[in-house]
Amino acid sequence: MSPRLDAQMAFLMEADRLKAITRATRNHDGRFENSAEHSWHLALFAMVLGEHAPEGVDRLRVIRMLLIHDLVEIDAGDAPIFGEVDETAKEAEERAAARRLFGLLPEDQGTELLALWEEFEANETPDARFAKSLDRFQPPNLNLASGGGSWVDYDVSLETFEAKLAPKIRRGAPGLWDWLHPRVKAFFASA
Amino acid sequence: MSPRLDAQMAFLMEADRLKAITRATRNHDGRFENSAEHSWHLALFAMVLGEHAPEGVDRLRVIRMLLIHDLVEIDAGDAPIFGEVDETAKEAEERAAARRLFGLLPEDQGTELLALWEEFEANETPDARFAKSLDRFQPPNLNLASGGGSWVDYDVSLETFEAKLAPKIRRGAPGLWDWLHPRVKAFFASA
Repeated sequence: MSPRLDAQMAFLMEADRLKAITRATRNHDGRFENSAEHSWHLALFAMVLGEHAPEGVDRLRVIRMLLIHDLVEIDAGDAPIFGEVDETAKEAEERAAARRLFGLLPEDQGTELLALWEEFEANETPDARFAKSLDRFQPPNLNLASGGGSWVDYDVSLETFEAKLAPKIRRGAPGLWDWLHPRVKAFFASA
Repeated sequence: MSPRLDAQMAFLMEADRLKAITRATRNHDGRFENSAEHSWHLALFAMVLGEHAPEGVDRLRVIRMLLIHDLVEIDAGDAPIFGEVDETAKEAEERAAARRLFGLLPEDQGTELLALWEEFEANETPDARFAKSLDRFQPPNLNLASGGGSWVDYDVSLETFEAKLAPKIRRGAPGLWDWLHPRVKAFFASA
């Protein structure tokens, strides 16, 4: 009898469903990215780009945050940044999903991971701000590598991109925005 | 000019190719798992199952190890555990891949991650042994969830499964083997 391990495995096998959640961004080969491989890619971004985080950021905590940040999409689906979405309804759906999913775990672990996810969503602590910025920084890089990706699919202009993304990426990772911005401008100039 | 960030981004965008490497294991929905989403799933296993690691294991280090453990498959492909493979040739291919891929990074980071990958491969330190055991523990759980998965595809018997997997999983995570074994026996008994 191992009810604790039973609960942990129920959570981990439910998490498998994140591999079937499709995002609006395309990988280098044009296939739409799923939220599980996206979470892996982001954790790798955090591992390699940690030195570009503002002082005081706990890089290993950011990695843990990014590994769980999209799990709620198992119930709530992905909301593309350039799509139309009812923010209030989406937020309620995601909160219910977080309670259900982290509720599968033993209580101490579920409480800890729910708090980590809520911290990510609130986007106020240095760790959450850096994690959120990486989550916004990775997709434009995939778009650059796949001939435009979601910018083409959603008919996005440079101005829309800048208005939506600049504040979000700058907030937690200003150095990464400075690196990205001229590359995106060059892409739109030649498109 | 930011040659250091240029190199980090070249590595991260090359890593995107891991999303196109297909494994022999199937996800819950029957689709073959890719090595990027597999790496994410394993990192989540490490995050949730850390308490089942032998004493002295550094759980966050195991997560970092698992995030990079399969990157060499970008060049060398995946070698299914129940398939036929020339171990010496595969090892040489993987070592060359590791040098090329981690060589894209700034030298200090490339050296560090190459050493972390070599430690995983050598399977001698407590961290590597736990990481390797998780890498062997996850696929049977997917097989149980997908009606047999690679056991059916490769016509694997309970005896072959036990001979191949018991030593590998027990080595770094005996408690996880004790949990898994009766479940696999029950599956084969009813298959």
